Amino acid sequence: MRISIIGLGLIGGSMAIDLRKRGFASHIIGIDANNLHAQTALNIGLIDEVGNLNQAIEGSELIVLAIPADETIKLLPKLLDKIENQIITDACSVKANICERIKYHSRRSNFVASHPMAGTENSGPWAAQSGLYDGKAVIFCDAEDSNPQALSMVKKMYDYLNMRPLYMNAYNHDVHVAYVSHISHISSFALALTVLDKEKNEKNIFNLASGGFDSTVRLAKSSADMWASIFENNSDNVISVLDTYIDKLNDFKNAIQENQNGHLHELMIKANRIKKIL
Amino acid sequence: MRISIIGLGLIGGSMAIDLRKRGFASHIIGIDANNLHAQTALNIGLIDEVGNLNQAIEGSELIVLAIPADETIKLLPKLLDKIENQIITDACSVKANICERIKYHSRRSNFVASHPMAGTENSGPWAAQSGLYDGKAVIFCDAEDSNPQALSMVKKMYDYLNMRPLYMNAYNHDVHVAYVSHISHISSFALALTVLDKEKNEKNIFNLASGGFDSTVRLAKSSADMWASIFENNSDNVISVLDTYIDKLNDFKNAIQENQNGHLHELMIKANRIKKIL
Repeated sequence: MRISIIGLGLIGGSMAIDLRKRGFASHIIGIDANNLHAQTALNIGLIDEVGNLNQAIEGSELIVLAIPADETIKLLPKLLDKIENQIITDACSVKANICERIKYHSRRSNFVASHPMAGTENSGPWAAQSGLYDGKAVIFCDAEDSNPQALSMVKKMYDYLNMRPLYMNAYNHDVHVAYVSHISHISSFALALTVLDKEKNEKNIFNLASGGFDSTVRLAKSSADMWASIFENNSDNVISVLDTYIDKLNDFKNAIQENQNGHLHELMIKANRIKKIL
Repeated sequence: MRISIIGLGLIGGSMAIDLRKRGFASHIIGIDANNLHAQTALNIGLIDEVGNLNQAIEGSELIVLAIPADETIKLLPKLLDKIENQIITDACSVKANICERIKYHSRRSNFVASHPMAGTENSGPWAAQSGLYDGKAVIFCDAEDSNPQALSMVKKMYDYLNMRPLYMNAYNHDVHVAYVSHISHISSFALALTVLDKEKNEKNIFNLASGGFDSTVRLAKSSADMWASIFENNSDNVISVLDTYIDKLNDFKNAIQENQNGHLHELMIKANRIKKIL
């Protein structure tokens, strides 16, 4: 199948590698607003040709949007205006604003809202890797608004990426990911800022990072463009989770400050329950 | 050399494996307040015999304390009272209270305060693993208070564990580890509590954890006993870091709430600097 991928970073680039290697895509047209990324994607063999939007529409049956949420919200209605029978899917970590934006579009059913839950802290076509999606979950949102043929084609694409399908409505999706993904990123960004502020001696950070800092701060290396767009488009849910998170941190602070050793211990025993789930 | 290890969990058990395998220890006496742990350590071959304190003192040249900070503070002066030429070291993540406690003990110089900066979120003798310490940093605190022969023996032990030595005074040590280790653990414990509170459907947590939650929450599986003792014994530093951390989270919250996209972006670009260090 001929496909186009718009956005040739970690997400789109990693899809390109495995969709071709595993026989789903026979030809991949790549588009990226950043010329260096597009040329790099071509040079390292992620895509077969660099194209523009019209070439993507004319030259492929399936178009994958792998760009930040705000750009997806801008581009998706324009693409739907131009296509005929082509199918479009996206890979954004927020869904309600996207689905809302094109809810009444005459070609809404050609779009499949999907969120492959995988990634690393790295970005750009250089970060693309085979196997990124293997065994992870992909969430289809408002699947009843997509036509069965479109849904089936996009599901097949994620089958080739070895992903486990889940179904949710877009609003529930955004609540869940605020808890299990977006807050983790803010927690990590804020941790990096805290340590960078206070530890003027960067060598100390490097030397001592094996004490747990390295794993909790990993996500602070993530793309600022991508995450600004996610937080803006899921602001109500993210703020509600942040409030709870700050409350829990204040619980810890008070327990430590007031020498409430029993309460401190109890908080951690409760948190330990995560062992049984993950 | 004949050594004793008091505390046969992840830290002491992992030392036992590599110190014997690599030829530093010819005979290991193990002690643990938990009989099940002591018997398990014997059964799985971490130690040669289960002993008591007197047997440890009589039967070894070097005694390693691998128990929580509060227990170390209680036990260390008693051990110093009883020894003659034996050398004692510890592995605690806090140092000032420990060094303060035995500062004027007549056998202070037989003690070497050390902190091997390595670990996993697992605990107990079952969690012990070879290679845990390889390539990581070990911090020697107030090394000038130890006699040269004692320091040299303990340094040799950490050489066998392939650790990189660093030197700090105990107070500076406690400030640094509050930043690069202790806050990471609180951040992670609080994250687990937040998600467990709100996500009543545990299957969702499991399914969606690949979105970053799994790595940031890993440390929330850590031992409550060990960490309660660390936070209590480093409370001033930990509270100061927690205050900064909560400030940074509020920065994020305000930027998201008030649609300050520029500021939000800027916060993350600043946090991204951690890439250049780690």
